[in-house]
Amino acid sequence: MKPAPVQSEPDLSGRPGPSAVPDLSDGSALARRAAELDAADELAPLRELFTVAPGTVYLDGNSLGALPRHVPARMQEVITHEWGALGIRSWEESGWWTAPERIGDRIAPLVGAAPGTVVVGDSTSVNVFKALVAAVRTAGDDRDEILVDAETFPTDGYIAASAARMTGRRIVPYAPGDPIGPRTAAVLVNHVDYRTGRLHDLPAVTAAVHAAGAVVVWDLCHSAGALPVGLAAHGVDFAVGCTYKYLNGGPGSPAFLYVRPDLQASFDSPLPGWTSHVDPFGMEPGYTPADGAPRGRVGTPDILSMLALESALDVWEGVSVEAVRAKSLVLTDFFLECVSLGSVTPAAPELRGSQVSLRCENAGAVMKELIARGVVGDFRPPDILRFGFTPLYVGFGDALRAARVLGEVLA
Amino acid sequence: MKPAPVQSEPDLSGRPGPSAVPDLSDGSALARRAAELDAADELAPLRELFTVAPGTVYLDGNSLGALPRHVPARMQEVITHEWGALGIRSWEESGWWTAPERIGDRIAPLVGAAPGTVVVGDSTSVNVFKALVAAVRTAGDDRDEILVDAETFPTDGYIAASAARMTGRRIVPYAPGDPIGPRTAAVLVNHVDYRTGRLHDLPAVTAAVHAAGAVVVWDLCHSAGALPVGLAAHGVDFAVGCTYKYLNGGPGSPAFLYVRPDLQASFDSPLPGWTSHVDPFGMEPGYTPADGAPRGRVGTPDILSMLALESALDVWEGVSVEAVRAKSLVLTDFFLECVSLGSVTPAAPELRGSQVSLRCENAGAVMKELIARGVVGDFRPPDILRFGFTPLYVGFGDALRAARVLGEVLA
Repeated sequence: MKPAPVQSEPDLSGRPGPSAVPDLSDGSALARRAAELDAADELAPLRELFTVAPGTVYLDGNSLGALPRHVPARMQEVITHEWGALGIRSWEESGWWTAPERIGDRIAPLVGAAPGTVVVGDSTSVNVFKALVAAVRTAGDDRDEILVDAETFPTDGYIAASAARMTGRRIVPYAPGDPIGPRTAAVLVNHVDYRTGRLHDLPAVTAAVHAAGAVVVWDLCHSAGALPVGLAAHGVDFAVGCTYKYLNGGPGSPAFLYVRPDLQASFDSPLPGWTSHVDPFGMEPGYTPADGAPRGRVGTPDILSMLALESALDVWEGVSVEAVRAKSLVLTDFFLECVSLGSVTPAAPELRGSQVSLRCENAGAVMKELIARGVVGDFRPPDILRFGFTPLYVGFGDALRAARVLGEVLA
Repeated sequence: MKPAPVQSEPDLSGRPGPSAVPDLSDGSALARRAAELDAADELAPLRELFTVAPGTVYLDGNSLGALPRHVPARMQEVITHEWGALGIRSWEESGWWTAPERIGDRIAPLVGAAPGTVVVGDSTSVNVFKALVAAVRTAGDDRDEILVDAETFPTDGYIAASAARMTGRRIVPYAPGDPIGPRTAAVLVNHVDYRTGRLHDLPAVTAAVHAAGAVVVWDLCHSAGALPVGLAAHGVDFAVGCTYKYLNGGPGSPAFLYVRPDLQASFDSPLPGWTSHVDPFGMEPGYTPADGAPRGRVGTPDILSMLALESALDVWEGVSVEAVRAKSLVLTDFFLECVSLGSVTPAAPELRGSQVSLRCENAGAVMKELIARGVVGDFRPPDILRFGFTPLYVGFGDALRAARVLGEVLA
């Protein structure tokens, strides 16, 4: 499939309203279109790189990405050879020690960052703490407010409250577009809303934060690997993101932290663990931070989770995020055409992530039944059915089938 | 081998001094004794549960524990079946979600803790931050000093400095036995010194801290799985520890956090991530902490590293830490008898962990040569050869061979 530019999106104005039930039967216009779109999909061969259980339409890659087929063999090698046979020598000989920044450099191009600006490790929550405290310290002592996305995924809000308490700031709820004043130290925003799938305008918000003299922290959990982010192009200060959704790193795989190159020298981490020391094996009692991305490290890297992620990133070889985004938009449009429920995900492409969230009565029970019938999405309270579309392994036939099964369950 | 009580330790007073070169040849008294001790060793069969490269004496289990043989197959199942086939369903169906506290309950008896008091996750450094900040908050606002083990593994000191900065306290260097005054909020001590192998008196230090009205945080990295700790018996407030040394959890496997039962309700974490919420999937904007051990969680657990640890803990089935300790003392005594270098590890059993640290000129180069000849220990600057003895897979013949090769390298 030729990546469709955003402007050539199908005109959705005539799309059936939420109450109409589209004809998805074999031979219907929508079924024919699904087949045509799959046949023209240049990313379709990538699906073979992944394990998806037979008979399953996996629309939960925005929660846990599918397993790339080659990862089990690589992990067997890591466990039996690198740990079992080489043991401690692997920290050097197998490159374990440098994994956090090496894998960071694999993620960097997927989020539009330069080499040497991304480091992998810890959970997203821990990285929010690092980034937000560092952002507040960057902003200076005369700014006492931290603005936090009012619709944020909860952990960012909880961690921000702790960061505020420990740095003597106060939290102010924020929605993109709200004024940012001279008291604002830092602004923490989710790039894509986890619940609604709404995409925020990263360039505009970043510019507004900077115009107010404040520092921005973006949470890329639902955009990294799903759409172009452009961290460097838009001058983002700090960013964090998770790797087990659209980057397919495996359950709870380590998160990443981005620090803008010109902020690295003053990056002042609240978690200065020994592996972020300039000379970690010097075992010095005083802390001198490393330069560059390694300054964002904390403790000993969790190698098994980390190397599974590294291996999983191989599927991106020769794949551009722009192509993934183009397919994602056509795919989510097509799914929206096929369903009869009201969507809380914006229809406009520039406002949409790579998921579709539908409002539904008894959403929890409906999702259970969908999963029982092989259509795996998830439920977010109180009334949201959430379907993630990972273009690397989800096709138009999958979207059609998911919509059909949803229709059957609702009927 | 019948676990020898501490009192029946061999009398070492007639041991050759550091300059004498013991006779380790075949048929020598020491070689005969190694064979006798191995033959009588009740823990010897456990060695078959581990992978140790043929021809290698692995004395670096205090840095990275050896691979238990059954772990690769279990991890293959986790990766291909639980992640690959079940996907997101595994959070519930495969018990991923509750892994942090379930695995904590497997570690609890090894450190003398009650069920429901230990949680697994994050690195040791991150857990030091949680425990120390919580300790300071427990102690109250009128106490402005944090006492930190002057010989601590560096990360504890670096993290303590950050905790002090963020809670408005100051760091005071401390050695066990030093006075603890009314300004002391918290005391952070390593149970076993990572460099010298010296074991500190946990009951006495804990009692002294409590007598001063302060709160103690123990770092068990070099004692968990090596010797009895007795957290509950001695009323320890908080403890952290790593699982990739004597617990063999794999490279960078997650650390653990202990909170004394009566402190759990007031445990005030500086990293209140979403998985520590009382209702994490309620996605509430306000933070209400979970009760019990789960309150120490932060972000999404790193399942691959965590389940490798869980699997590795199977080797403890039917094994008591007391038996491991008894063998460890005989083993390290025997090794000390076999070597001609001066030891910085105390000879008295009550002052010794499960390692032997020898002082040596050109220690870095000597260790490289030892490793090249199949005796794997490690080097700690400036002049320490460090040998860890993990009784689960190290025997007396190993100790003899290590000493022989060391003698050859030194000659």
